[in-house]
Amino acid sequence: MEYEEPKFFHVMQYAAAADGDVIDMVSGNPDWEPPTALRDALGEYAELPSDAFQYPPSEGLRELRESIAARRDVDVDRVVVTNGTGEANYLAMARAFERDAGSEALLMDPVYPYYPGKTELLGGTPTLVPTNRDGSLDVDAVRDAASEDTALIVVNTPNNPTGAVYDLDAIREVVAVAEAVDALVVVDEVYDAFDLSGSFESALAIDSENRIVTSGFSKSMAITGLRVGYAILPESHVGSAKTRHMLVNVAGSRPAQYAVTHALAETDPSYYAANRELLRDRIDAFTDSLDAAGAEYTRPDGAFYVLARFDGYPGTMANVKRLIDEVGVAGMPGETFGTARDDWIRFALVTPRAVEAAERLAAFFGDR
Amino acid sequence: MEYEEPKFFHVMQYAAAADGDVIDMVSGNPDWEPPTALRDALGEYAELPSDAFQYPPSEGLRELRESIAARRDVDVDRVVVTNGTGEANYLAMARAFERDAGSEALLMDPVYPYYPGKTELLGGTPTLVPTNRDGSLDVDAVRDAASEDTALIVVNTPNNPTGAVYDLDAIREVVAVAEAVDALVVVDEVYDAFDLSGSFESALAIDSENRIVTSGFSKSMAITGLRVGYAILPESHVGSAKTRHMLVNVAGSRPAQYAVTHALAETDPSYYAANRELLRDRIDAFTDSLDAAGAEYTRPDGAFYVLARFDGYPGTMANVKRLIDEVGVAGMPGETFGTARDDWIRFALVTPRAVEAAERLAAFFGDR
Repeated sequence: MEYEEPKFFHVMQYAAAADGDVIDMVSGNPDWEPPTALRDALGEYAELPSDAFQYPPSEGLRELRESIAARRDVDVDRVVVTNGTGEANYLAMARAFERDAGSEALLMDPVYPYYPGKTELLGGTPTLVPTNRDGSLDVDAVRDAASEDTALIVVNTPNNPTGAVYDLDAIREVVAVAEAVDALVVVDEVYDAFDLSGSFESALAIDSENRIVTSGFSKSMAITGLRVGYAILPESHVGSAKTRHMLVNVAGSRPAQYAVTHALAETDPSYYAANRELLRDRIDAFTDSLDAAGAEYTRPDGAFYVLARFDGYPGTMANVKRLIDEVGVAGMPGETFGTARDDWIRFALVTPRAVEAAERLAAFFGDR
Repeated sequence: MEYEEPKFFHVMQYAAAADGDVIDMVSGNPDWEPPTALRDALGEYAELPSDAFQYPPSEGLRELRESIAARRDVDVDRVVVTNGTGEANYLAMARAFERDAGSEALLMDPVYPYYPGKTELLGGTPTLVPTNRDGSLDVDAVRDAASEDTALIVVNTPNNPTGAVYDLDAIREVVAVAEAVDALVVVDEVYDAFDLSGSFESALAIDSENRIVTSGFSKSMAITGLRVGYAILPESHVGSAKTRHMLVNVAGSRPAQYAVTHALAETDPSYYAANRELLRDRIDAFTDSLDAAGAEYTRPDGAFYVLARFDGYPGTMANVKRLIDEVGVAGMPGETFGTARDDWIRFALVTPRAVEAAERLAAFFGDR
C-alpha cells in the first residue's frame, strides 16, 4: 500500500541523518503557537474531577459539537467529532464504499497521498483525475471519468499540495456529477482557516444528500498532535458514520476535545489572521527567491505549500536527496502526489527558516 | 449492526429520565482517581513548547512504547500504541480478516458486544462459542467450532462480563487450535490490572505467530476518556497494523500519551493495589447482598462486573427497566452479552454506591 508517511518519513530520516544543517520543509506541522486558551484549558483539565477523565460521548463532547454546528450553521445532529480530520475522511470514504454504489474513487491529481491509501484500505480502486495547470478543478475531466462504478469523489480545498482554492460553482458541478452516478463527494476543508485569497467558500453551502464536509483543528490551531477533527454529514449518512466511529475508536480523546472547545469559544479572530499574515509574508519571500532561481510555481491561494519546478532538475527522490545534501533544504518529491507533478517539489512553509531556505535554493539554482 | 452502546445508552437514558434516585451500575467507567502523576503530567504538557503539540509518531510516543515493551518484556518494535484498547482490538481483528484465511470469528459466549460489532464491520461472521458455567474457557467447544473458515478467535481475560480469569494452559490450547486452522487469536487483557485471583498470566507468555495481545490504560489508570491502548503483535503482523492505524487515525492524541508515559514511570504499585482492594471490598458486600436476595452468581476473579440471576426474574430489558423504576438500580440486560446468560443481569461495581445498590436488591428480592 502506497501512502504519504513512508516516503515522508524516508525523507525526514534522510534529512536528519545528513551531515550539514538542513531546513525541514517536509512536514505539514505548523511551527507557530496554539491559542493561549487551548493551553489554559488543557491546564484546567488536569484539575477536573475524576469523572471528567471518563468516556466522552462517542460522537464528541456536546459543547464542542454545538460550537461547530453554530459556526458552520448546521444541525448539531449532523456533526461527528473524530480523531483528527484523518479519521473524518476515513469515515466519510468508508460510507461511500459501503453503500454498494460502486468501487471506484475519483481523486484529484496531484493527490494528497492518504486518499489513495484509504481508498485501497477500504477495498476501493483509486482513479486519478487531472486538475488544471493552476490547480483548479477540471469539472469536465471529473464528468468524463465518472461512471456507474464511481462510489466516491474526494476534493480538498484549500488544496494540499497545490494551494488552489476551488471555486464553489465548480464543486457544485462535481456534486451534480456525483448525484447523477449515485456517488458521494467528500470535501476536505482542513485548511479552511488558511484561505489567503479571500474567495474560499465552504461546500456546506451546497445542498445535497451526496456531499460530506470534513475539517478539523490540527492546522487552524496548530495542534496536529491533539487529533480533533469532524465530519458534517447529510442525515442519511450520520448513523453509519457514528457506528463505524464507535466500533473503531469508541471515542476521541477527551482532554483534546475539552481544550479545543474552550479555544473555539475564547480565541480572537486576530489569532487566525496573524497566522495567515505570517504565511503570506513567507510565501512572498519564498516565491521571490523562486523567481531568482528561475523556478516555475503557482502562488498558493491557500494552505501551507508551494509546488515548484526547477528546469533540468526534476523532483525525483534522488534529486530531493541531493538538495538535502548540497543545499540543506528538504522538500517532498512530486511523485508522492500522483502523476501530475512528478517533476515538481513540494515545500512546506511551516518553518521560521522558510526565507533562508528560499535563499539557499536561489543561490544553488541561480548558479547553475 | 448490533453492539453494546445503543443498548447501553438506552439503559443509561432510561435511568437518567427515571423519577427516583437511581444507582448507575451500567457503565464500565472507574469511579476512582487517576494517578496523581497523570494529572501532573497533563498539567505540565499545557506548558510545553509548541512543537510538543504536533504529531507524535504514528505508532505512539517512543518513550511510551519503550516503557510498555519493558513492562511486557517484548521487543519495542512489536508495540503499536492505539486510540484506546478499542482501536487495538479493531486493528488486530482487521489483520485476521485481511489475511484471506477465512471469514469466521469465534467469540466466547457471554460476549463483550463490541467483538461481534467489529467482526461485522470488518465483513466477518461471528460465531458464539459457549464458555463453561463458571465462565472459564471451554477448549473442546472452541476446537469443535474451529474450521478452515475460522480467521479469528477472540478471548478476553480477565473477562467482561463474567469476571473469569482464564487459565493460561487453556489459552495455549486455543492458540494451538488457531494454528491448526491458520487463524489468529486476539487476547484482550484490558482488565489485567484487576486480577483479584492472583492467578492471571498474560498470553504474551505463549510463543506463537498467531497470537496478538491487546491492552490499555483506560481501566488500570481510570482514564477511559483519554484513549490510550496498545497492541503487541508478532513481527509478521506489525506492519499491516501500523499501516491501518495510520490510514484510519494518523496517530493517537499526544497529551494523553504523554500523561500515560509519566504515570507509568511515576505511579507506585500501591495505587493499583488500593483499587483492587476497593473492588474486592465492594464484591464482598455486593455478593453478600446477592446471597440475601437468593440470587445465583459467580464471584468474579477479575474485572469490574458481577453477573447475577434472580429466580423468576429474567434479565430482560423490561425487567431491567422495572429494577430502575422500582428499586433504583440500573444494570445491563444479559441479552446484551450474547445468548449464554440472557436471563442474567450484569452489574458494574464502579460506583461508590455499590453496597447501597446491593441492599436495595436484597430488600426487593428478599421480600418476593
